[in-house]
Amino acid sequence: MVNNRFLQALRRQPVDSTPLWMMRQAGRYLPEYRELRQKARDFLDFCHQPALCVEAMLQPLRRFDLDAAILFSDILVIPHAMGMNLAFKEGEGPVFSSPIRTADDLKALKTDTLTPHLSYVFETLDRVKPLLQVPLLGFAGSPWTLATYMIEGRSSKLFRSIKTLLYQKPQVVEELLALLSTHLMDYLSHQIQAGADAVMIFDSWGGILTTPDYHRFSLKPMQRMVQGLKKRHPHTPIILFTKGGGQWLEAMANTGADALSLDWITDLAQARQRVGHRVALQGNLDPLILYGSPDTIRSHSRRILEAYGEETGHIFNLGHGIDPHTPPENVTIMIDTVREYCRNKRMAA
Amino acid sequence: MVNNRFLQALRRQPVDSTPLWMMRQAGRYLPEYRELRQKARDFLDFCHQPALCVEAMLQPLRRFDLDAAILFSDILVIPHAMGMNLAFKEGEGPVFSSPIRTADDLKALKTDTLTPHLSYVFETLDRVKPLLQVPLLGFAGSPWTLATYMIEGRSSKLFRSIKTLLYQKPQVVEELLALLSTHLMDYLSHQIQAGADAVMIFDSWGGILTTPDYHRFSLKPMQRMVQGLKKRHPHTPIILFTKGGGQWLEAMANTGADALSLDWITDLAQARQRVGHRVALQGNLDPLILYGSPDTIRSHSRRILEAYGEETGHIFNLGHGIDPHTPPENVTIMIDTVREYCRNKRMAA
Repeated sequence: MVNNRFLQALRRQPVDSTPLWMMRQAGRYLPEYRELRQKARDFLDFCHQPALCVEAMLQPLRRFDLDAAILFSDILVIPHAMGMNLAFKEGEGPVFSSPIRTADDLKALKTDTLTPHLSYVFETLDRVKPLLQVPLLGFAGSPWTLATYMIEGRSSKLFRSIKTLLYQKPQVVEELLALLSTHLMDYLSHQIQAGADAVMIFDSWGGILTTPDYHRFSLKPMQRMVQGLKKRHPHTPIILFTKGGGQWLEAMANTGADALSLDWITDLAQARQRVGHRVALQGNLDPLILYGSPDTIRSHSRRILEAYGEETGHIFNLGHGIDPHTPPENVTIMIDTVREYCRNKRMAA
Repeated sequence: MVNNRFLQALRRQPVDSTPLWMMRQAGRYLPEYRELRQKARDFLDFCHQPALCVEAMLQPLRRFDLDAAILFSDILVIPHAMGMNLAFKEGEGPVFSSPIRTADDLKALKTDTLTPHLSYVFETLDRVKPLLQVPLLGFAGSPWTLATYMIEGRSSKLFRSIKTLLYQKPQVVEELLALLSTHLMDYLSHQIQAGADAVMIFDSWGGILTTPDYHRFSLKPMQRMVQGLKKRHPHTPIILFTKGGGQWLEAMANTGADALSLDWITDLAQARQRVGHRVALQGNLDPLILYGSPDTIRSHSRRILEAYGEETGHIFNLGHGIDPHTPPENVTIMIDTVREYCRNKRMAA
């Protein structure tokens, strides 16, 4: 590997320049991705084709000075591999035609080993690995987040279905979470075997829960995954990301994860103070700042670098996935700002 | 006034039982409200009729043992009074046909005094006041939250329009916020003159901002309102509520507000520790817990009372408005739990 900054920062080692990558860096904001996307019938079909996924992963690396590649896939390939019918509908997002609502629905899930159904993911990692100059990041959704989609059936604003089940029959939800955490741990372990240098767990919906319920239904299953992975792969860094989880950073840092990814709401300097030296921190520019003026993009990018300060263990990133309508030239402004800031700091040192 | 617990708790005085009311306690989850609603052409027409608003406010008080009445209205009557065309569309929520996008759009707003256009609100307060045994709470949206609706034109998930304007032309947004904070302060002052015993500022969308932007664009205009109101009405308690603002409670408590309302994400015991003795706290049951089993409703209600502990200054409430499909009998379970808990504590003392 030519450029190892990302892994060094995850291990809180000194780096020559703050490493930088972007959530959803391969995707719709890039015209070359939109063109590539035409080669597949739909988004799920795209995810099933390693050749297309590899090309999508390489596109942002060709265009921008980035320090990591991330697996091109979707968190919902897991419930799909468990036999749930999944469609990505234009303008609607993902839809499961038969969401889980009862204990009987759980029994219908395929609970034998999933990895044969996910071979296309491992093939993508295997194929892309020799083409990279930067570390390769694998990922999965959190058990709670996958359960949310599997029970709601689609994106939701209020999450009435899963909360009704949670508050009427918590044991059904817990059974699903236990099942998911076992399979997700196994899935990430296979990603590591297929070449992932680090893995990230995306908990998109932990932030809708009360504090005790976050601990019980979102954090605990993630902690199980972290601990299981650490036994099998003690040297592979793990990043946790709970969107809207800014109030729970201390507990997240206690899971044994190596790094926390922060949404843009959380103040990075305060987060650094709160979690102490246990973990690296990744983030946290509001992705919509990339719609702003060049000056705004520069000042907010510098604000984040200044907020983190002199310590080791910062990975610059967005606080959420890059928005599909972002002008790519604004990404360049952000990256140039980070590079220039780090260069000036090196020269001053 | 027969029952003054709500105001006593807002002033952090001892009370015989924790006061309780619910955000959106008058509304669609009540069959009698759904019937009443038929008497108006649409929701905005309903808000314009003091007789209907008064009746809507009294309905939950007849059914439940509640300690406060809240003005029946909508935060968007202010932009409507400023001349913006507003419609509440079934299943879509509020829609402004011509949202604000430029500095010129600001000039088209009516910026003379708004109160003559809002006389129906003051008439509602005036008429309901003699019918109440409990304190009367007025309210307004926060400047940032109203600006969000006025610029987006409707409810939004990502808030691309206001963030694009914010990050391209912050001075346009600041001009709108200054205008709104002046008028909203005046509006709440008139509500107090018309009989409101306390007022609450609803900041539904402050929680989408980065920490420095929350301070500048959401908190600062609210602080201006609080300070202006305190000059005119030093004895009227003010409650601040930023949904998703759990990381900024200390700053919110420093505005001079008397109480903070908490969403359900925030841990009430930690909040109490963080804000110290400066403010009362209101909240914070997840409204969707009211879809749960009776045992779950009881245990979560008790959890909140226990989390707050022995100190003065707690108002039991939901962490957000009650959901339109909530079974009213579950509200009774919650209220009975709170009353019983407080009765047992009194007897033990």
